[in-house]
Amino acid sequence: MLTITRRERFNAAHKLYNDKWSAEKNKEVFGKCANENWHGHNYELFVTVKGEIQEETGFIINLKWLSDLLNRKVIDQLDHMNLNLDVPFLKGKMVSTEVIAVEIWKLIADDILSQGAELFRIKLMETENNFVEYWGPNM
Amino acid sequence: MLTITRRERFNAAHKLYNDKWSAEKNKEVFGKCANENWHGHNYELFVTVKGEIQEETGFIINLKWLSDLLNRKVIDQLDHMNLNLDVPFLKGKMVSTEVIAVEIWKLIADDILSQGAELFRIKLMETENNFVEYWGPNM
Amino acid sequence: MLTITRRERFNAAHKLYNDKWSAEKNKEVFGKCANENWHGHNYELFVTVKGEIQEETGFIINLKWLSDLLNRKVIDQLDHMNLNLDVPFLKGKMVSTEVIAVEIWKLIADDILSQGAELFRIKLMETENNFVEYWGPNM
Amino acid sequence: MLTITRRERFNAAHKLYNDKWSAEKNKEVFGKCANENWHGHNYELFVTVKGEIQEETGFIINLKWLSDLLNRKVIDQLDHMNLNLDVPFLKGKMVSTEVIAVEIWKLIADDILSQGAELFRIKLMETENNFVEYWGPNM
Amino acid sequence: MLTITRRERFNAAHKLYNDKWSAEKNKEVFGKCANENWHGHNYELFVTVKGEIQEETGFIINLKWLSDLLNRKVIDQLDHMNLNLDVPFLKGKMVSTEVIAVEIWKLIADDILSQGAELFRIKLMETENNFVEYWGPNM
Amino acid sequence: MLTITRRERFNAAHKLYNDKWSAEKNKEVFGKCANENWHGHNYELFVTVKGEIQEETGFIINLKWLSDLLNRKVIDQLDHMNLNLDVPFLKGKMVSTEVIAVEIWKLIADDILSQGAELFRIKLMETENNFVEYWGPNM
Repeated sequence: MLTITRRERFNAAHKLYNDKWSAEKNKEVFGKCANENWHGHNYELFVTVKGEIQEETGFIINLKWLSDLLNRKVIDQLDHMNLNLDVPFLKGKMVSTEVIAVEIWKLIADDILSQGAELFRIKLMETENNFVEYWGPNM
Repeated sequence: MLTITRRERFNAAHKLYNDKWSAEKNKEVFGKCANENWHGHNYELFVTVKGEIQEETGFIINLKWLSDLLNRKVIDQLDHMNLNLDVPFLKGKMVSTEVIAVEIWKLIADDILSQGAELFRIKLMETENNFVEYWGPNM
Repeated sequence: MLTITRRERFNAAHKLYNDKWSAEKNKEVFGKCANENWHGHNYELFVTVKGEIQEETGFIINLKWLSDLLNRKVIDQLDHMNLNLDVPFLKGKMVSTEVIAVEIWKLIADDILSQGAELFRIKLMETENNFVEYWGPNM
Repeated sequence: MLTITRRERFNAAHKLYNDKWSAEKNKEVFGKCANENWHGHNYELFVTVKGEIQEETGFIINLKWLSDLLNRKVIDQLDHMNLNLDVPFLKGKMVSTEVIAVEIWKLIADDILSQGAELFRIKLMETENNFVEYWGPNM
Repeated sequence: MLTITRRERFNAAHKLYNDKWSAEKNKEVFGKCANENWHGHNYELFVTVKGEIQEETGFIINLKWLSDLLNRKVIDQLDHMNLNLDVPFLKGKMVSTEVIAVEIWKLIADDILSQGAELFRIKLMETENNFVEYWGPNM
Repeated sequence: MLTITRRERFNAAHKLYNDKWSAEKNKEVFGKCANENWHGHNYELFVTVKGEIQEETGFIINLKWLSDLLNRKVIDQLDHMNLNLDVPFLKGKMVSTEVIAVEIWKLIADDILSQGAELFRIKLMETENNFVEYWGPNM
């Protein structure tokens, strides 16, 4: 098994807040992350693609193509945005690192199949101290 | 000359926006950083203190004391906050990395003098790609 | 499959030394790591937990809870300690990175089950140049 | 399952160029990487070995032995070399990160078996933004 | 004194070779860096600019302007190039990290003055293990 | 002004303990760092040398020579050692990061002068969160 991984980055604001709960309960569960005036992160996104080496190029997938896809479908929608307010595919969702990672998978999995390769893993780092990895719905 | 540096970190939201300008001019000057719904960063703060080695401890300054000071005076006010809305010492200011660095200097310079040492430099990283350094008003 | 990872850090001293061997054999097998007066490391511990997204929070597990657990059960026992002398759960064991990783798994696996999630991987970095990963006894 | 990983590094020049194609097609597919006068990278190689803890040492494998093997079989042949011209085991191949990772596996897999352990993964980073992982021909 | 620093990166090939010397002397002085078939690096360039905070923006200098300048004048000429063969401003020079840093200074110092700020320092990292800093001809 | 910096690393054990004080006072001042059974760090040492570019090489100083000097005079004496017990040049001193940095300066400053260059700065990192810089006795 062989994979290649591309890193892209974005900066964004968010808060963790469940509207069905009281302010107290939100503060108890989410701590400082529930601050009503938002806070933010420099996110790092690592997208891993699985496939075979193509003889003519030595590549699993052309990284320039992959980077263009990620910028167009993901980074342009998230970078310098408010994840709770500005991002159509996150509307009405809790914008935890877990949820964002799963939604990014949905946005790009089919495009990668169209190149004869397969999306293998989404890794999303919120800080140096915590990150999420998602291997898709079939694993 | 001898210095010691302590790193602390905080996550915060902000936007760069000059209220005296039109939305168009803000977008032209600040680009994505002017997004009205905020964006954010994992900031890294490096505080450098200059002094002599104290014979009994081998220290310029006790780093536990310095870390406590930084957490109380700086990090607790900035971490998981909105720099434009939530932070008294930034009220009414442009919250660029430059301005935040200069304001952090003002908050802690006197406290460090009280320990027989001297604040030498504030370094504030907004991302891996850009950071500000401030050596104080006398240099 | 979805996981979240939390990083914690600790500094500790140790030596690699098998009491059943001669000093010469220890030096031959462990090299500088057998230095009788100890040496030490800044360890980085990455704890990965597997689970489902909980609808109310968007979390697999509350990272504040996980960080508290890790500090109480692991970091408080290892940080600024001598791994050969000061740590009950390492007594009488070779304190290689491998052994420490396996022992950390045993300390916390059940606690994580109690939260409706599952310990997936312990990664322990001794230096930038070497690290161990442990996926538990069933994998 | 338990693994240990060793990092080694090398600097090398290469270009991505398919001799069967026109210069235009090479430029279209490989972009700047096709520059005929070479370009280069600081590569980081992470070699992961799987095995059991040996009771006498606490080790899966002796990292000094592993580092010596990697330096002798891999780093000495790649460091400060031109990957297209100077490296016998890459002769006539496209020197993509994918291809280099697979070839490194072939060079060392049997040596590691001789130590009672098993090569588990080759990770090769070309830059901070892209890396390849290879889990061998049987996975 | 207040400065802001922007990081940009480029990958390039080079060799260290003095044509007036024998191959033996080159090998003796430059070691592996004299390998005739080139080797390469992922360089990191940090450009530091000194100035006053402009009241309307909170900036010393607009980082988007600075990044555009660096890409146009420096990165486009160095990235994925052979520093000995492809770069007009390095022609006929020893392409050590020292020399490249000094030449980058000359390329951009006047442009930065035109923005009411001042070039303060060029830092150029060849690897994690070595880097050069240049504070200009007047310091 | 032009400088070049070389990084070397070492792992060591130490404790911070003033023998003239009670155990209580040591614990109060040094906290966990006073643990009597030692703790340790992965230290990173950055040695910065100032000088002119030599025309024949493009170098301020030959980094291979500098690395050999650092390994012989500094790293071989500190790596995998107990800084309180094993290191002649630290005998009887408080082994704070400050003191170690100053002592390293004394060990190598004259050797660097012999190469027609000048020691400019010693930077010693104890962890990612704290480091010391020393510019010598004349600055």
